[in-house]
Amino acid sequence: MATRIRTHRKQRKNLLTSPGTLTYVGKSVDIKTQIKRIEYNASFYHEAIDSNLDVCLPRAESTDQPFVTWLNVTGIHEPDVIGQIGKMYQLHPLMLEDVMNTDQKPKVETYENGHLFVTLKMLHFDENSPTELWAEHISFVLGKNYLISFQEEQSGDVLTPVIDRLKASVGKTRRSGPDYLLYALVDVIVDNYFLVLENFGDQLDQLEDQVISGYQSQSLSELYSIKRELTFARRLIWPLRDMVAQLVRPDDPLVSKRVHPYMRDVNDHVMQIIESLDAYRELLASLVDVHLSTISNRMNQVMKTLTIFSAIFMPITFIVGVYGMNFDNIPELHTRNGYFITWGVMGMVTLGMLGYFRWKKWL
Amino acid sequence: MATRIRTHRKQRKNLLTSPGTLTYVGKSVDIKTQIKRIEYNASFYHEAIDSNLDVCLPRAESTDQPFVTWLNVTGIHEPDVIGQIGKMYQLHPLMLEDVMNTDQKPKVETYENGHLFVTLKMLHFDENSPTELWAEHISFVLGKNYLISFQEEQSGDVLTPVIDRLKASVGKTRRSGPDYLLYALVDVIVDNYFLVLENFGDQLDQLEDQVISGYQSQSLSELYSIKRELTFARRLIWPLRDMVAQLVRPDDPLVSKRVHPYMRDVNDHVMQIIESLDAYRELLASLVDVHLSTISNRMNQVMKTLTIFSAIFMPITFIVGVYGMNFDNIPELHTRNGYFITWGVMGMVTLGMLGYFRWKKWL
Amino acid sequence: MATRIRTHRKQRKNLLTSPGTLTYVGKSVDIKTQIKRIEYNASFYHEAIDSNLDVCLPRAESTDQPFVTWLNVTGIHEPDVIGQIGKMYQLHPLMLEDVMNTDQKPKVETYENGHLFVTLKMLHFDENSPTELWAEHISFVLGKNYLISFQEEQSGDVLTPVIDRLKASVGKTRRSGPDYLLYALVDVIVDNYFLVLENFGDQLDQLEDQVISGYQSQSLSELYSIKRELTFARRLIWPLRDMVAQLVRPDDPLVSKRVHPYMRDVNDHVMQIIESLDAYRELLASLVDVHLSTISNRMNQVMKTLTIFSAIFMPITFIVGVYGMNFDNIPELHTRNGYFITWGVMGMVTLGMLGYFRWKKWL
Amino acid sequence: MATRIRTHRKQRKNLLTSPGTLTYVGKSVDIKTQIKRIEYNASFYHEAIDSNLDVCLPRAESTDQPFVTWLNVTGIHEPDVIGQIGKMYQLHPLMLEDVMNTDQKPKVETYENGHLFVTLKMLHFDENSPTELWAEHISFVLGKNYLISFQEEQSGDVLTPVIDRLKASVGKTRRSGPDYLLYALVDVIVDNYFLVLENFGDQLDQLEDQVISGYQSQSLSELYSIKRELTFARRLIWPLRDMVAQLVRPDDPLVSKRVHPYMRDVNDHVMQIIESLDAYRELLASLVDVHLSTISNRMNQVMKTLTIFSAIFMPITFIVGVYGMNFDNIPELHTRNGYFITWGVMGMVTLGMLGYFRWKKWL
Amino acid sequence: MATRIRTHRKQRKNLLTSPGTLTYVGKSVDIKTQIKRIEYNASFYHEAIDSNLDVCLPRAESTDQPFVTWLNVTGIHEPDVIGQIGKMYQLHPLMLEDVMNTDQKPKVETYENGHLFVTLKMLHFDENSPTELWAEHISFVLGKNYLISFQEEQSGDVLTPVIDRLKASVGKTRRSGPDYLLYALVDVIVDNYFLVLENFGDQLDQLEDQVISGYQSQSLSELYSIKRELTFARRLIWPLRDMVAQLVRPDDPLVSKRVHPYMRDVNDHVMQIIESLDAYRELLASLVDVHLSTISNRMNQVMKTLTIFSAIFMPITFIVGVYGMNFDNIPELHTRNGYFITWGVMGMVTLGMLGYFRWKKWL
Ligand SMILES: [Mg+2]
Ligand SMILES: [Mg+2]
Ligand SMILES: [Mg+2]
Ligand SMILES: [Mg+2]
Ligand SMILES: [Mg+2]
Ligand SMILES: [Mg+2]
Ligand SMILES: [Mg+2]
Ligand SMILES: [Mg+2]
Ligand SMILES: [Mg+2]
Ligand SMILES: [Mg+2]
Ligand SMILES: [Mg+2]
Ligand SMILES: [Mg+2]
Ligand SMILES: [Mg+2]
Ligand SMILES: [Mg+2]
Ligand SMILES: [Mg+2]
Ligand SMILES: [Mg+2]
Ligand SMILES: [Mg+2]
Ligand SMILES: [Mg+2]
Ligand SMILES: [Mg+2]
Ligand SMILES: [Mg+2]
Ligand SMILES: [Mg+2]
Ligand SMILES: [Mg+2]
Ligand SMILES: [Mg+2]
Ligand SMILES: [Mg+2]
Ligand SMILES: [Mg+2]
Ligand SMILES: [Mg+2]
Ligand SMILES: [Mg+2]
Ligand SMILES: [Mg+2]
Ligand SMILES: [Mg+2]
Ligand SMILES: [Mg+2]
Ligand SMILES: [Mg+2]
Repeated sequence: MATRIRTHRKQRKNLLTSPGTLTYVGKSVDIKTQIKRIEYNASFYHEAIDSNLDVCLPRAESTDQPFVTWLNVTGIHEPDVIGQIGKMYQLHPLMLEDVMNTDQKPKVETYENGHLFVTLKMLHFDENSPTELWAEHISFVLGKNYLISFQEEQSGDVLTPVIDRLKASVGKTRRSGPDYLLYALVDVIVDNYFLVLENFGDQLDQLEDQVISGYQSQSLSELYSIKRELTFARRLIWPLRDMVAQLVRPDDPLVSKRVHPYMRDVNDHVMQIIESLDAYRELLASLVDVHLSTISNRMNQVMKTLTIFSAIFMPITFIVGVYGMNFDNIPELHTRNGYFITWGVMGMVTLGMLGYFRWKKWL
Repeated sequence: MATRIRTHRKQRKNLLTSPGTLTYVGKSVDIKTQIKRIEYNASFYHEAIDSNLDVCLPRAESTDQPFVTWLNVTGIHEPDVIGQIGKMYQLHPLMLEDVMNTDQKPKVETYENGHLFVTLKMLHFDENSPTELWAEHISFVLGKNYLISFQEEQSGDVLTPVIDRLKASVGKTRRSGPDYLLYALVDVIVDNYFLVLENFGDQLDQLEDQVISGYQSQSLSELYSIKRELTFARRLIWPLRDMVAQLVRPDDPLVSKRVHPYMRDVNDHVMQIIESLDAYRELLASLVDVHLSTISNRMNQVMKTLTIFSAIFMPITFIVGVYGMNFDNIPELHTRNGYFITWGVMGMVTLGMLGYFRWKKWL
Repeated sequence: MATRIRTHRKQRKNLLTSPGTLTYVGKSVDIKTQIKRIEYNASFYHEAIDSNLDVCLPRAESTDQPFVTWLNVTGIHEPDVIGQIGKMYQLHPLMLEDVMNTDQKPKVETYENGHLFVTLKMLHFDENSPTELWAEHISFVLGKNYLISFQEEQSGDVLTPVIDRLKASVGKTRRSGPDYLLYALVDVIVDNYFLVLENFGDQLDQLEDQVISGYQSQSLSELYSIKRELTFARRLIWPLRDMVAQLVRPDDPLVSKRVHPYMRDVNDHVMQIIESLDAYRELLASLVDVHLSTISNRMNQVMKTLTIFSAIFMPITFIVGVYGMNFDNIPELHTRNGYFITWGVMGMVTLGMLGYFRWKKWL
Repeated sequence: MATRIRTHRKQRKNLLTSPGTLTYVGKSVDIKTQIKRIEYNASFYHEAIDSNLDVCLPRAESTDQPFVTWLNVTGIHEPDVIGQIGKMYQLHPLMLEDVMNTDQKPKVETYENGHLFVTLKMLHFDENSPTELWAEHISFVLGKNYLISFQEEQSGDVLTPVIDRLKASVGKTRRSGPDYLLYALVDVIVDNYFLVLENFGDQLDQLEDQVISGYQSQSLSELYSIKRELTFARRLIWPLRDMVAQLVRPDDPLVSKRVHPYMRDVNDHVMQIIESLDAYRELLASLVDVHLSTISNRMNQVMKTLTIFSAIFMPITFIVGVYGMNFDNIPELHTRNGYFITWGVMGMVTLGMLGYFRWKKWL
Repeated sequence: MATRIRTHRKQRKNLLTSPGTLTYVGKSVDIKTQIKRIEYNASFYHEAIDSNLDVCLPRAESTDQPFVTWLNVTGIHEPDVIGQIGKMYQLHPLMLEDVMNTDQKPKVETYENGHLFVTLKMLHFDENSPTELWAEHISFVLGKNYLISFQEEQSGDVLTPVIDRLKASVGKTRRSGPDYLLYALVDVIVDNYFLVLENFGDQLDQLEDQVISGYQSQSLSELYSIKRELTFARRLIWPLRDMVAQLVRPDDPLVSKRVHPYMRDVNDHVMQIIESLDAYRELLASLVDVHLSTISNRMNQVMKTLTIFSAIFMPITFIVGVYGMNFDNIPELHTRNGYFITWGVMGMVTLGMLGYFRWKKWL
């Protein structure tokens, strides 16, 4: 299952075990691991799916031409299965640990026995709670003529478009080696980040309108929630930044020179996504300021209303109090029009006050 | 069409296609692509415009002397046209993708088959809504004796001054190669950034006066809007920072040593623009503080007014209440001048209060 | 004893002494230093505990095969004991100073006579006061075929799991040299940081719920207290960042190439912890903003309540004041239903006010 | 004329001209360019002033010994004059552009034909409006045995002290080459920055006293104004930071090794100035916080005053209201001392309130 | 005399003088410069004090063994004395300028004629005004077999412990060269920084308690004052960060390899101090937030009190107003228990209000 930002407590499971002990730290899953072996070159394409490990044995009846084997493993929660695959391909125990550790941050690592290890995250927003971002852990092991991919679960396989393209026609991927396949798979993952980016952009747009129009119920906790998801996304994408430098090396026997411009292109997209996330973060910070100032402005408005009411009614309430006094000798009380004159005076006081506040621009 | 900051959703169009598939992601456009071929050297100048691709074939009847060909393509929304040009000049499919991708950030890239690719943004403020900044995507491909420029649309071609200079007289550009032409075109684009900078400076000046004078209606959302456009502009200019380092390389066969000081000069201007944008950003942040403190000061003013009113009228209203009581035995009520003495006492209370507030510097 | 963030005053003890003078600067301890000597290789395991220094002499009756000696010293407060160990293994006086200096920040240092010195911190939250983070000072000296570890006190020895694994079976550690043992020990310490991280995560989760739900008693001083502990933890973990670069060097005679991937794995975990701490720090900063805005919103609410009360009662209190005046000639007073009409008028004023405030969205 | 921070609109003048076209972008000036030629070595000193360019021709009747020529040009607004000097000394057109461009930021540049170009800013506060900082553009061209200086205008020539020293006696400058003269001139400019720094320090001192004492009229807009000038100054001094690295190069034929320590000394001073400006900036930010908290404290004071008044007068005004009621049967009204007892009760309520507020520390 | 942060105006004294002109810029001092010459090696120790320069001549009657000469100069305000010492040891004029310039920031510099120059600051809090930090300027010149130290004044010589150790016994310093002496002196100065750090820690502890307990009188200006001193201290310690890199160079003839670990140890301490200062700074920033939120909370409290009073007394004052009206026909007035029923109604209104506010959690 995919992972949310607050799951470090799962880590405890394998905390004090011997290094290289395989332990799955993600959410518990019931499904069996599914293994799909795809073999192809420019002239043929062959595919086999099973949850039995034997299907991933290299095909005996292979063609004369060299071909690419892609082992697509879906499910990383069964230490036994992962361990067996590791034994078959002689993968380093720490590499297998990283394959199963859903808290592992993205990285590229080269192992002594000629394996290139790439691990990164697939990001998507929860369909039911559309402001919650989820991450899936995906790893790739590139060997001389094969590629192994490990991903968390079956639902919504982001790699499907690449499989479809492989099947559909003899394109660039079919004519190239496993390095180009690695590129194609990483590219499709990074391309999906743009959907996440777009979702953030839409949320920000809505909030911007809310905040600027001054409609404020809940705004700040929404701002905080976007901020938290942005921080989460950035933390998982940021390490990809150095990835290309490690994939594009002059004399790497695994990644051929022809694939370098493609890898640089992925890097370009990663940089664009990071910069957009940073720009969003900066705008969020400004929106917080706008929001706080809106609150202050509104309080100002409330205070003015109160002050205007008080300043109008206090003087005239005082006046009516004066003529409610019981002194024996209050000459005004006995004049014929005292009452009406008092009304006049009070009207004038009121108008004076209103004029004063208009002059002060409070009205 | 030019692009605004929030258009990542267009990206979805080519999200899961095969790499190198040409897709236009900007606003949809109806106009046909226009192709202008200019050929020149110190002794002749020739120009041809058409929307037909055949006009961009190298001229057969060329002079004996070497000459420079500039292919100025206006319109990057037709994959067919761009693809054909790419085939003719053997441009890398990823380069063509970047030419059409209006979301591509500025960069310089060298391709194996001897092409130097430069892509950057033309910035201008919307003429109708003068606080909205728009970006146009412009790309250049520098070859051995030709330069290809791709730009979004016709209206307001910023490259016109260079064409005019080429036509008008035999100047430095006419006597130099396509590397100098590239410089001249980039220079004219960067020079236009100063107009954007100036516009920001003017907006900031106005806001500064507004904020400091305390005139506050809408100030903060205007501050926010300038901030957003500044962030936008900075994000599109910042990558140019490293451009010169890639253009000025000791043994580059495409950019001759004579052009290096000119490229450095462009870099100088880019740095100046970035620093000005940063200074503006810092001042904006300070203006937000001034604005918030102005709101607070104003609320303080309102509170003081309310407090002064209350503090004056509450005591005297109490006094008139006292003599409005109906006790049988209130001696003061029956004195001859009780009423007038009461007025005197109330006057003194009022003066006392006023004095107290003057002493507290509230008046 | 472990150390809290504010104990620089202990430093004064050895301030002006001759360099290399051994002085313990931590909390005073009564317990005697305990020394445990463990010797092992793939075929045997031998362990001896004593507070007598003689037990740490190399065993005479050693097997023919090479073996690893681990000297596990618990207690760093007795200059005599530390000094004697230093003499026996020819440790540099400054290294011993750092072993005893509980304020020493984590670092790796190579000494001329072939010692690799690693010092770092064990972190744990106080069991009684669960928001207080404590640090214990742990140092390692790696020699050609031995490892010396120095730690502060006995309670809760974090290295126990490694001892247990050594004893239990012949695993990777038993088959490897002291460099792998060093890795295993550092790994177990770094793994424990995840528990600290988890604790921070839980505290933050609780606070987040508190702050967003607007329940505010004490929130900010709790935010401050987490912030202080985060700053403390980060300051002690951050230096580990460069550790691996110093441990993984091409031609280091002490750390063999086979151990390099393991050291890099530790680095990976350190980086993940630092990034999580930074993400927490950033979220804390945002929570402060949410908290401040919640306070402001609440004050706004209070002000509105006051204003509504005042605006309703001031006018009607004025009206009843008017008909409490004692003018001889107030015609309304003598009408049959004046009193009831007045009630009606006051009811309408009240309803008007309530309508006004509902229109203003204050109700 | 000197330049203020907001003058990018002048830039428009030469925006779309051919590169290298000389255009003056500063404030318009009426004065003619003045040219002063100084020739000296250890044994003689000769000086000639004119606005005629012919005076800057190298002297024919020179002594046998090598000598230094310093061409001190005052006035950079006449493209003709600058162009002619450029032709005479074969200066690069872009160098001349930078000489005339008063918006050019400080830099050091080496040109192919053996010229070292240094441009920087002279800063001073306006004498009439002592919080406005002005910048003058000064450039130096160092050749094999000559130095050319270009500065904006005559008033208050900062280079005078150096001329006086040259005239007065045979000191180090007279015995050295043009590289030492360049140092002496840059040194005198950087020394003048200390006066600017001192002025900032004084302004900050005054504001600090104002803000801390809580005297607040206009404080924040003054804080903003200092902030703006600090940002301005820092932007113009910061680039000097890298200057020395470019001036002190092992095999530079123009700047001899003997002058290197002097150049490093200037760098030292530049660093000290930048750090002071940064410290000032940080203190300014803290002062803003102090100021905002002072405003809040003051509002708190106002609110307390209002609350105390209300809490005292509301209850007793209510009491007098009670005995102003006209019920037939109010027994208290007819007791002998009811009126006086009521006064007593009201006094006690008042004292109770005062006690309550003293207990709450509001008084 | 020691220096405070705001003394750049003294700089003016030597602003426009010829470079290398010796000018003292600190506070004026009356005392004569005191010169102490110490000569030692493992077998002898000799000391001579005078204010006469002749005492610093190398001793003629020296032993056969090589020995170290330490010239400890106290007083840097007499250009004559400093100049004479400079001539005797052939010190570069700019080095002497830096010795006398109390505004010079810490640095290490190597001069061509084999001198290593180190200048740094001695920091201590004012004994009378314990929150004011003072800095003393100390410089060292390391030669082949001698060390010269220059410090500002006599009171409280921080170097005394080293002199005492030299005199007391034949320790490491007596057996080593002037490079180890330099280390010992710098070490003692850096060790003293821990006292400053401790003082900051104590101030911060107190303030933290004050701020969190909500006792607020003056808190923010105290926060500001600590902030200012922290900024001051950091500015003077920060440059030491790069010091060790310049002191520990592979082939330096002046600092032997044996002293390198000691120099690195000093660096370690410097880094620890800088990090603590930074942690303090960060905590200060958080305390400001806590303080501001405390003020807001308090104002909230005041507002609630006011609102509760108003909401209780306004309705009941209205009621008593109603029965103070003089309408001829107010039936309630003539009922037997009207007065007492009114009291009951008012009591119920009061209780209702109290219940409402308790429900709103305001009470
Ligand atoms: Mg583990
Ligand atoms: Mg791992
Ligand atoms: Mg999936
Ligand atoms: Mg892509
Ligand atoms: Mg919108
Ligand atoms: Mg691309
Ligand atoms: Mg794609
Ligand atoms: Mg692409
Ligand atoms: Mg256009
Ligand atoms: Mg330009
Ligand atoms: Mg203005
Ligand atoms: Mg230029
Ligand atoms: Mg802020
Ligand atoms: Mg010491
Ligand atoms: Mg322990
Ligand atoms: Mg681990
Ligand atoms: Mg929660
Ligand atoms: Mg131009
Ligand atoms: Mg230019
Ligand atoms: Mg001048
Ligand atoms: Mg100077
Ligand atoms: Mg002061
Ligand atoms: Mg100097
Ligand atoms: Mg100096
Ligand atoms: Mg000087
Ligand atoms: Mg002293
Ligand atoms: Mg020390
Ligand atoms: Mg405390
Ligand atoms: Mg030490
Ligand atoms: Mg140490
Ligand atoms: Mg803040």
